[in-house]
Amino acid sequence: MAVTPLYKQFADQLAASIRDGVLRPGERVASVRIASQQHKVSVTTVVRAYELLESRGLIESHPQSGYFVREPAQPADKPAPARRSARQDNPAWQQSTEVDVSRLVLATLKTIQQDGTVPLGSPYPNPALFPSQRVAQYAGKITRNASQSSVFDDLPPGHPDLLRQIARRYLENGLKVDPEEIVVTVGATEAINLCLQAVARPGDTIAVETPTFYAMLHAIERLGMRALEIPTDPQRGIDVGALEALMETQPVAACMVMPNFQNPLGFQMPDAEKERLVRLAERHQMPLIENGVYSELYYGNAHPSSLKNYDREGLVLHCSSFSKSLTSAYRIGWAMPGRYRAQVEKLKFLNTLATPTAPQRAIAEYLTQGGYERHLRRVRRAFAQQRDLMRHFVLRFFPQGTQVSEPEGGYVLWVELPSGVDAMELYRRSLALGITVAPGRIFAATNRYSHFIRLNYSYPWSREIEQALKLVGKLVQELAD
Amino acid sequence: MAVTPLYKQFADQLAASIRDGVLRPGERVASVRIASQQHKVSVTTVVRAYELLESRGLIESHPQSGYFVREPAQPADKPAPARRSARQDNPAWQQSTEVDVSRLVLATLKTIQQDGTVPLGSPYPNPALFPSQRVAQYAGKITRNASQSSVFDDLPPGHPDLLRQIARRYLENGLKVDPEEIVVTVGATEAINLCLQAVARPGDTIAVETPTFYAMLHAIERLGMRALEIPTDPQRGIDVGALEALMETQPVAACMVMPNFQNPLGFQMPDAEKERLVRLAERHQMPLIENGVYSELYYGNAHPSSLKNYDREGLVLHCSSFSKSLTSAYRIGWAMPGRYRAQVEKLKFLNTLATPTAPQRAIAEYLTQGGYERHLRRVRRAFAQQRDLMRHFVLRFFPQGTQVSEPEGGYVLWVELPSGVDAMELYRRSLALGITVAPGRIFAATNRYSHFIRLNYSYPWSREIEQALKLVGKLVQELAD
Repeated sequence: MAVTPLYKQFADQLAASIRDGVLRPGERVASVRIASQQHKVSVTTVVRAYELLESRGLIESHPQSGYFVREPAQPADKPAPARRSARQDNPAWQQSTEVDVSRLVLATLKTIQQDGTVPLGSPYPNPALFPSQRVAQYAGKITRNASQSSVFDDLPPGHPDLLRQIARRYLENGLKVDPEEIVVTVGATEAINLCLQAVARPGDTIAVETPTFYAMLHAIERLGMRALEIPTDPQRGIDVGALEALMETQPVAACMVMPNFQNPLGFQMPDAEKERLVRLAERHQMPLIENGVYSELYYGNAHPSSLKNYDREGLVLHCSSFSKSLTSAYRIGWAMPGRYRAQVEKLKFLNTLATPTAPQRAIAEYLTQGGYERHLRRVRRAFAQQRDLMRHFVLRFFPQGTQVSEPEGGYVLWVELPSGVDAMELYRRSLALGITVAPGRIFAATNRYSHFIRLNYSYPWSREIEQALKLVGKLVQELAD
Repeated sequence: MAVTPLYKQFADQLAASIRDGVLRPGERVASVRIASQQHKVSVTTVVRAYELLESRGLIESHPQSGYFVREPAQPADKPAPARRSARQDNPAWQQSTEVDVSRLVLATLKTIQQDGTVPLGSPYPNPALFPSQRVAQYAGKITRNASQSSVFDDLPPGHPDLLRQIARRYLENGLKVDPEEIVVTVGATEAINLCLQAVARPGDTIAVETPTFYAMLHAIERLGMRALEIPTDPQRGIDVGALEALMETQPVAACMVMPNFQNPLGFQMPDAEKERLVRLAERHQMPLIENGVYSELYYGNAHPSSLKNYDREGLVLHCSSFSKSLTSAYRIGWAMPGRYRAQVEKLKFLNTLATPTAPQRAIAEYLTQGGYERHLRRVRRAFAQQRDLMRHFVLRFFPQGTQVSEPEGGYVLWVELPSGVDAMELYRRSLALGITVAPGRIFAATNRYSHFIRLNYSYPWSREIEQALKLVGKLVQELAD
């Protein structure tokens, strides 16, 4: 017996009024109290109905003045008028843009969360590959034996054992790091947020790669900054020359990049380009925020260098985490903010006060015991093989005109579909079949990549994945016709 | 053999140049690169030396232009000139203020962190009172048995089991809550930050109690807002009439309060005052951010009401956590943001992406198994007794003119020392004896409460605590003479 909850009924009724033009774009919707009185429903019902309509993009809330009917959204693959006119004069990437991409990202991530879907759209690596159980055992033991005063250990910058182990790991990979340079955070997400806030202010322009990992855009959005999208080569990374040229025309407060195995493109910036970018930053005294979460997942013979390797002046704010290489269960990340260390430590304290101690100590214990490098070698081998398989089957199942990236590390593939294909529609139709893909639009502040998708190949190749890919290929074919 | 590290030597050298006037306030310090070349030391040494000088308040960094010698700081209990002149016209609380209190707070919390100090200055409850072990056992079991896909469970709003248990707990305490109203966060700290960001913008004025819990001031500071300090009665809480009068003279974007067992005053706002505050908020459509972390720690016969109990329009953003009542090991908090729920959920996603799943499930399991109410009864009884002992011995050991609060819940005492006593100096001298106290200055955005301290009475009364209090009393006497 399917009963529509009251708030949905009320929302549908209101949605109909909007569709029918009874309520017009820009008009104020009745206040929660008034609506509750008029319709004889509870305040909670009204609030939930309004939230539902907001999530559907039909109304929006303006702080302290209530809800308003939204302007109709632009169709997915039609550029917004503002951008189109900008385009007549300049390539779109010369304009900085306000950022509002997070709703779409959260919605797609939630679909991936549903049990039983084939997670081709997932941003996460297959958790079965990671030694989470062992780390959990250490965590359990540590918590049981914790001295009662250990609550005090977890103030920033973080637990000394973990700081030492992180520094040691960098040293093994050729980067000399002092444990005191590090601040532990809630995943790389918090690290990126804190670093950006430490170096720039609301309204500032931040240069990013395009396409870029949406967490970068989220940080910009959260802090009310503007994104300046810099052309990014699928093999060489951000176009340093283009960035420099743009910096002559407008102030750029900071630049955020992912030089190794960028999500979604998968490139490893050549060392010379990394150094060139850092020198450019030095000349302009521009902070560089580096996201290094995939650096351990290389397929080549040696650990790639980081921007931090070339940093002589403390301008590189390096962010990373264990979520992509060891365990995502605890969301332990960190920042090495160079000359901005004191500010980042302070912001960490303001933002979430502290990162829990037990998981920090458990990861430190795992790193002390050894086995991390062996685990990583196994994962790298698996990902390299799975990349080849995924590329092979995409090229086989998808229509002509499809192009795929050649990642040198990490676990995602960037797929350009024939230009007429609407990837948002593909996302929706795939989801209806129980398969997720990540639509290209979530990787840009502007309305780009409407015919791109990102695919996750961290799961071992299986008949189920092959079938899913075949089905997605068919949908692409239908949408291309 | 005590060797002074190179960076400290370099910092001391530079500090001497500043003291001697070689480098004057406002002057730029040599860039990191130049200094490194001039002094033949590494960049890291320079950076660490500059950070040290910054933490000592001698230099300050200006983003993208380097380090500058600071203007000499105002002595602790002398009002800053700007404020003094403002005072000539109005009571100081009529002026909103930029906020920068976090450095002092972080520094004092770090001293509390040191092993072996008597933690009278601690903001944390005695962890020995809490069933952290049992929750840790659940967490261990859950992690060991976790399905490999559980990484997806932890996207906002939070784990469904925990959301249900939190809602059930509110229901037991007389507040009807739908699990869907709740968003799980990294402690109440993150909840407060997200709620404030959801309802106000940089530059906005936020009304706060005075004295107020510094986490409120931190949120305001982090978001670049201004604090408007409202007189707050030690028994009745924030002066609603004064708030209303001030709202007539200037726009107030939101108000942040702690109606139950406020830190540091300890009052429980009378129900009539709570309702009056909510009605005022309704008339002005002003969001109210409520910090409820101590609500479970009441000494009376019944759980106190929350502002949320009087909230008809979804204007109350209620924040809380388990850190003060069950376990602080996992930093699990939550927000019930009323009509701002969608924005808060989105901001949670942007800020830290997710809260780890295992601790959420472990706490849910503890709440399901029962025993929480029994544990709380024991804690409440202990705190009520310890309040009486602490009050008794403060009045006995401290000089005449000392006044102490009468908290009705929680575990901190607010102590007014004779008016000439400099609490910052008391803090420093106590620390030298291995005793921490929380200086009053950290509880205000303006330079107030210079002769107040906050004392923690969550630890069972002992000879050590009694001796420590006696020593502090002697120091107060010395400073009063």
